[in-house]
Amino acid sequence: MEDLNKPDFSGLKALYINCTLKDSTQQSHTEGLMKVSMNIMESESVAVEYLRLVDYDVAYGLILDMKKERKEKDDWPDIYEKVLNADILIIGTPIWLGEKSSVATKLIERLYGMSGETNKKGQYVYYGRVGGCVITGNEDGIKHCAMSILYALQHLGYSIPPQADCGWIGEAGPGPSYLDKESGAKNNKFTNRNTTFMTYNLLHLASMLKVNKGYNSYGNSREKWDDGTCWSFQNPEYR
Amino acid sequence: MEDLNKPDFSGLKALYINCTLKDSTQQSHTEGLMKVSMNIMESESVAVEYLRLVDYDVAYGLILDMKKERKEKDDWPDIYEKVLNADILIIGTPIWLGEKSSVATKLIERLYGMSGETNKKGQYVYYGRVGGCVITGNEDGIKHCAMSILYALQHLGYSIPPQADCGWIGEAGPGPSYLDKESGAKNNKFTNRNTTFMTYNLLHLASMLKVNKGYNSYGNSREKWDDGTCWSFQNPEYR
Amino acid sequence: MEDLNKPDFSGLKALYINCTLKDSTQQSHTEGLMKVSMNIMESESVAVEYLRLVDYDVAYGLILDMKKERKEKDDWPDIYEKVLNADILIIGTPIWLGEKSSVATKLIERLYGMSGETNKKGQYVYYGRVGGCVITGNEDGIKHCAMSILYALQHLGYSIPPQADCGWIGEAGPGPSYLDKESGAKNNKFTNRNTTFMTYNLLHLASMLKVNKGYNSYGNSREKWDDGTCWSFQNPEYR
Amino acid sequence: MEDLNKPDFSGLKALYINCTLKDSTQQSHTEGLMKVSMNIMESESVAVEYLRLVDYDVAYGLILDMKKERKEKDDWPDIYEKVLNADILIIGTPIWLGEKSSVATKLIERLYGMSGETNKKGQYVYYGRVGGCVITGNEDGIKHCAMSILYALQHLGYSIPPQADCGWIGEAGPGPSYLDKESGAKNNKFTNRNTTFMTYNLLHLASMLKVNKGYNSYGNSREKWDDGTCWSFQNPEYR
Repeated sequence: MEDLNKPDFSGLKALYINCTLKDSTQQSHTEGLMKVSMNIMESESVAVEYLRLVDYDVAYGLILDMKKERKEKDDWPDIYEKVLNADILIIGTPIWLGEKSSVATKLIERLYGMSGETNKKGQYVYYGRVGGCVITGNEDGIKHCAMSILYALQHLGYSIPPQADCGWIGEAGPGPSYLDKESGAKNNKFTNRNTTFMTYNLLHLASMLKVNKGYNSYGNSREKWDDGTCWSFQNPEYR
Repeated sequence: MEDLNKPDFSGLKALYINCTLKDSTQQSHTEGLMKVSMNIMESESVAVEYLRLVDYDVAYGLILDMKKERKEKDDWPDIYEKVLNADILIIGTPIWLGEKSSVATKLIERLYGMSGETNKKGQYVYYGRVGGCVITGNEDGIKHCAMSILYALQHLGYSIPPQADCGWIGEAGPGPSYLDKESGAKNNKFTNRNTTFMTYNLLHLASMLKVNKGYNSYGNSREKWDDGTCWSFQNPEYR
Repeated sequence: MEDLNKPDFSGLKALYINCTLKDSTQQSHTEGLMKVSMNIMESESVAVEYLRLVDYDVAYGLILDMKKERKEKDDWPDIYEKVLNADILIIGTPIWLGEKSSVATKLIERLYGMSGETNKKGQYVYYGRVGGCVITGNEDGIKHCAMSILYALQHLGYSIPPQADCGWIGEAGPGPSYLDKESGAKNNKFTNRNTTFMTYNLLHLASMLKVNKGYNSYGNSREKWDDGTCWSFQNPEYR
Repeated sequence: MEDLNKPDFSGLKALYINCTLKDSTQQSHTEGLMKVSMNIMESESVAVEYLRLVDYDVAYGLILDMKKERKEKDDWPDIYEKVLNADILIIGTPIWLGEKSSVATKLIERLYGMSGETNKKGQYVYYGRVGGCVITGNEDGIKHCAMSILYALQHLGYSIPPQADCGWIGEAGPGPSYLDKESGAKNNKFTNRNTTFMTYNLLHLASMLKVNKGYNSYGNSREKWDDGTCWSFQNPEYR
């Protein structure tokens, strides 16, 4: 019953987007935990890209390039290209008042803005990709932030493998953060285990989808649906 | 680029649990929408089972059989067996004050109670199964309820395919419900499309996982982790 | 600028409903923290009532007495009377998978079921009362549970004073609970302070509302609105 | 039992912050509904100020003036002054994927950043003020967005009167927005009633708090607590 062969994950690409409020001149605790996951991926020969969204000028809005709506700058088109190039998207965020950051919220708005795009099969453009999240705070909110991020990703077309959320928080109340030695966070077995399992489950599902060339479009092609195909769906009737 | 072959979904089993507050003597609007999805599955030769949780005596608590903790009755062991027999679990719920029902909340508590169990690979017991949800209300809350349900399922080990949430609500304020003719809900194209896509994506992912015999246990076996295996995970160090 | 006089809170009544899954034969960690707040109230001469909802047979449903809809038992009418007799309602709940308990969810459904009732001023029946919450878990979710409970209470007509949520959780991952000595939870300064501030703010706002005989009905009487009164509201026009 | 006198709300100040993603060159549906509430306030002689946060350069971060942390621009100090000058704060937001906007999230982060400040009584600086919210979308999410906003406001020290959330959404699926004539939204009786009741309840509670000079500091002064005062709080003991 054992899986004896070490799977080969080379060929997969992962994009980690850190949605901390701090630009790269400052330490990010969320980055600290994201690195644990990135290290695993790199050890498994996955091509890993990492960025902090606040380092870029990403405009508010919902079209591909907000410069076309009079915004002076908008780096979203570049980020979006990275998103499309990756098989795996991992969103990292700190917790503020129990919620994901405003930067993470903007990222999801921009991803959502493109959700009308379709791939060559007529499916939503994110189909065939997998997503996960990494959350840190000094107190309370991993699950709530994860709910919001993972919901958005699956609604947009990402697949979510088992236990695709990981994170660290301390006891109720203010206190040291993930990278602060006195937190002892790096030795938290639960956080380390969840981070490891999330990372591998993202890889397993991404591999499976890659082998299958994404999802078969039978039953989920937006283009076909719009053309009148509805497979075994039957319009329910009022009686 | 097209997927020309109709996939074969026979051999898959799906369990639909309706978490309405009403027992089977009463009409459930949520059942109405669940049936749209069930009809598709049945047309695709999937073995479908359906139940309303309130028809059973499911106790509050977190162990397999709460009769062992002095509860008079507890039908959970039977329901849990059905859950384990199914490749696909779809939770249906009405919306009350923007939240999933108390019955759905209890279902998740009972599923959670078993989450320490492992399969033959040492993985959490729900691994290899896929989950989705169906939400109805007369107003507001599909996404919030779906966030909570899908989060719980993935955290417990279920995989979530693209767009695994569907539902119907009317305009803000009280009004007719899904099965009321004056709601026009059955003709809502968005609801019909999402219900169809959810159903097929559950089938595609369940098929894929079945062919793969679930997830390879490299990197996600709870038993191996507890025995000291940590694959490419490296304990981060404080510097 | 100081408030020198000790306020007189005698005459106020508070109802604490513990929504633990455990009946009174078992220890409830949530009760442990609720008692900290109850002790303050009692020291301030407030009439305090406490109950665990699972000790009662509260049916699923949305009318006052579900026995009228063929349920064998329903203790809700008695609980509802207690709710109406109290100036202050504090809902306690454990956290399961980041959510309030199914018992708390049922309590809110039953409160919601009565929200069409009006008082002598034609306002919703809960107007003039104040609400708060106490949350415990061994990990993660105080704020998310509090969001849901406090939202429901205010939407039903309760007033929410500053910082009406308090709670305790430990570091990420399983671990000791509130009453377990090794948790050190009782010495958590943040939890103790928040519990104290919540308790006093509930008392201050309840006193203020009592002196004012609740809310003036100018602008919020459901009955008057239904009769055509709309005060300074003007129907917006499309241009 | 009737309240016969028309209350006098002159002297109160309200600040409406619209967290739409669109700057003032574009139509905001959320503004449309906010105006219904503003019109009532103005008719009741309340001093009303309105702004769209995206029209300002508000930096990411958590201190009063992020220019001190090398940000080029930060208009937050001006906005914060407006917040402190107002008795009432109403946050408006559109819904994106079931969540409040990234602009609203940033607003709450900046409010939170100042939550350590205290007033002359030693209480958190927002004490004595009241808060509400206005939500619009073309589909689904009023309650979820309201939960998040109202939770944050009360946690920061605002008081929340009954039914402090109002909003409009259409039936499930994309469709016309609040200001689009074909939505019929302006004639939605539920939305109009809730908007009216919210507005008046904010006024009633703000008046009450103004007459009382905010909250008595007995039991809630952060400064006194830090100095060792704990009123009737008694440290719970392990037994």
